[in-house]
Amino acid sequence: MNIYEILTAKKRGLPLSDEAIDFFVDGFVRGEIADYQASALLMAICINGMNDAETYALTRAMIASGDTVDLSPLGQSVCDKHSTGGVGDKVSLVLLPLVAACGLTVAKMSGRGLGHTGGTIDKLESIEGFDTALSRERFLSVARKTGFAITGQSEGLVPADKLLYALRDVTATVDSIPLIASSIMSKKIASGADVIVLDVKVGSGAFCKTEADAKQLADTMIGLGKRAGKKVAALLTDMNTPLGNTIGNALELKEAIATLKGEGPDDLKDLCLTLAQTILHLAGKGDRNRCRRDALRALQDGSALEILRKTVSEQGGNVAQIDNPDLLPQCRYKQEVFAARSGYIVETDAERYGMAALLLGAGRRKKSDSVDHGAGIVLHKKLGDAVHAGESLATLYASDPALFAEAETTLLQATVLGDRQPCPTPVVLQTVLDR
Amino acid sequence: MNIYEILTAKKRGLPLSDEAIDFFVDGFVRGEIADYQASALLMAICINGMNDAETYALTRAMIASGDTVDLSPLGQSVCDKHSTGGVGDKVSLVLLPLVAACGLTVAKMSGRGLGHTGGTIDKLESIEGFDTALSRERFLSVARKTGFAITGQSEGLVPADKLLYALRDVTATVDSIPLIASSIMSKKIASGADVIVLDVKVGSGAFCKTEADAKQLADTMIGLGKRAGKKVAALLTDMNTPLGNTIGNALELKEAIATLKGEGPDDLKDLCLTLAQTILHLAGKGDRNRCRRDALRALQDGSALEILRKTVSEQGGNVAQIDNPDLLPQCRYKQEVFAARSGYIVETDAERYGMAALLLGAGRRKKSDSVDHGAGIVLHKKLGDAVHAGESLATLYASDPALFAEAETTLLQATVLGDRQPCPTPVVLQTVLDR
Repeated sequence: MNIYEILTAKKRGLPLSDEAIDFFVDGFVRGEIADYQASALLMAICINGMNDAETYALTRAMIASGDTVDLSPLGQSVCDKHSTGGVGDKVSLVLLPLVAACGLTVAKMSGRGLGHTGGTIDKLESIEGFDTALSRERFLSVARKTGFAITGQSEGLVPADKLLYALRDVTATVDSIPLIASSIMSKKIASGADVIVLDVKVGSGAFCKTEADAKQLADTMIGLGKRAGKKVAALLTDMNTPLGNTIGNALELKEAIATLKGEGPDDLKDLCLTLAQTILHLAGKGDRNRCRRDALRALQDGSALEILRKTVSEQGGNVAQIDNPDLLPQCRYKQEVFAARSGYIVETDAERYGMAALLLGAGRRKKSDSVDHGAGIVLHKKLGDAVHAGESLATLYASDPALFAEAETTLLQATVLGDRQPCPTPVVLQTVLDR
Repeated sequence: MNIYEILTAKKRGLPLSDEAIDFFVDGFVRGEIADYQASALLMAICINGMNDAETYALTRAMIASGDTVDLSPLGQSVCDKHSTGGVGDKVSLVLLPLVAACGLTVAKMSGRGLGHTGGTIDKLESIEGFDTALSRERFLSVARKTGFAITGQSEGLVPADKLLYALRDVTATVDSIPLIASSIMSKKIASGADVIVLDVKVGSGAFCKTEADAKQLADTMIGLGKRAGKKVAALLTDMNTPLGNTIGNALELKEAIATLKGEGPDDLKDLCLTLAQTILHLAGKGDRNRCRRDALRALQDGSALEILRKTVSEQGGNVAQIDNPDLLPQCRYKQEVFAARSGYIVETDAERYGMAALLLGAGRRKKSDSVDHGAGIVLHKKLGDAVHAGESLATLYASDPALFAEAETTLLQATVLGDRQPCPTPVVLQTVLDR
């Protein structure tokens, strides 16, 4: 077995054996296979693909490259959730306390991630004192006490994925379904949950531009999870427009808190309820209708919000900021973005909305960047809404008013006004329970 | 323009613009594009190919990465020849003095190369004192005096090819027609000749396993040469069995000298005459029949051998070794390889024959290895020949008798004996004059 043979086989479109994939991942992590050989193989995989068996072997080999988390002390049905990433995606902040309120246990490791805004961990760090670097003991203890614990991803988890992703990022080899699926599922499986729900985004702001691509990615990930003995389901959800009305860390946390009080925007609320319904059903909490009713009740009776409150308290955060979200960080400067004409918002470029938030300081360009928790955008008008010339489309928040000009231009370019109201599109496009 | 966009385009199978290809080659040579990005692009090219315009742009960009040789002081019709590489291929040693004897000028730069045996330069270095590192002035002066000068390839010629080849070699991205064609033709065009004949090998011992592949490679190279204003033709020739009866540097030079006296083996003689005929015709020396007659006469009347003699003398070599080839280096130890059964040689694996010669010391595994000029193999029986059990198939030569065992095993494994005489195959399969 040598890397040259492996490269030759994949170049010719042949499937790789489990041994070949183990050899590659292990050799690459050890530094015995050079970056230039790994990148050539990644390119061959991007072009010629991998079948299900190869993708599973890659997932397993990546898991084997590092530590795994044992959540068995928490008993059965520990849940996890993953989103392929969207703009304004604060779903985890609502969904996780919500399903905990319905009797599931959530012990989630979450990445910090690059992009338009921070990840769930960054959003929670808007809360004073909130500890996102829990020891294993404390992580399990919080999950036991409140039903919901969340911590930053351990450095030792799936190191192969970190190394491969860094190489994919600079060699245009990111957009491959087997590579994406194995990257996501290796981390989910290594993190120890039994029940996993996946939110696969579709649209201009997502990796999957079409529902067909998203279905294929969802099917692949569900297949990987099943092979590993996990219960997995996926939703395909719209990302042609940002989710909810806020983009930015503290702004999104505020909106999540409102949603946990039953007050959030419809698209966000509907998505959270459908994800909760799916995960509760998957965990054996009854038929889908009953699961949805239970989830809705947990929003309405305040029990979901109470879980978030308890978790914040257990993880050292300032609960006063949950009780009164106006105490969360907010940038000193704000600026309105006005509509230049009357009409309807007929098209939004979600990715550019995210870019505007990044320009305001809400996200990271590189790993070492810090996030401005108070920066971001509040949208007053969304896709399909009627607007009048001179009306405010959005409010921008930044710590430096010099940042507004470029963000405003970006937001306006991303917002197309027209004369006819477009057909509304649902947030949830499809539920994929099994392949 | 950035490398990420270029990688994305080729990954999707789109053609690259001239600017994109210039950007890549220039950036790679300057070290601004990393090895892992270059190897990913090479893999994408291997899988998705390149059209004629891209292949020409790549060839031009590689030429532009270094020096070019100006042979215009030698006047029109300076000739060059290239072989894609075969086992026992001593054709240049015969062909070049032969066409010089027919009135053409040959000023050839030749690589040393890795492989079973050395390159033409190594073979000539079997001659005491022969200088293969001529200054430009002396190179032109020898060509003017004798009609045939040969020197090692200048370090400054097509550095992009050296860098790219080193990367292709370790990333399984060698076997791509656009990459091979541009690599060969960039060096041929940069070397300054006007008339170029290509010997494209087909068979088990060659890169092209089928005549169809060889035709495609020949067509691509001829197209590149024509775009650059060169006269180019190609022969597709058999490499399912070694060429001639010798493999090894001094052994091959001896066989070439015999062929220049009209005494060589038929396959070698026929190939040299057909190549000479083709190049003479291409250079405007009359119709193909006349060109063949002229070439045959130059072998028979000793004028071709006389050119080699003069060139050896001009380049400081010991002419006595040409006059009496027994004075050329020969290893101290020899061993016969006997047939285990009677029958016919029905199959030979040319590549393994080459490997056996390498095991005896005739070739290089890595650039810094030195070649044992006296080592190699003399074949007594060739493909299609009848043999008796116990008869000698070949004589092996080595400086260390410990080397014989593995070489003998390799040679025997590469020689299949059967009961029926196979149909003879011609050496020259096809002449490709234009696409």
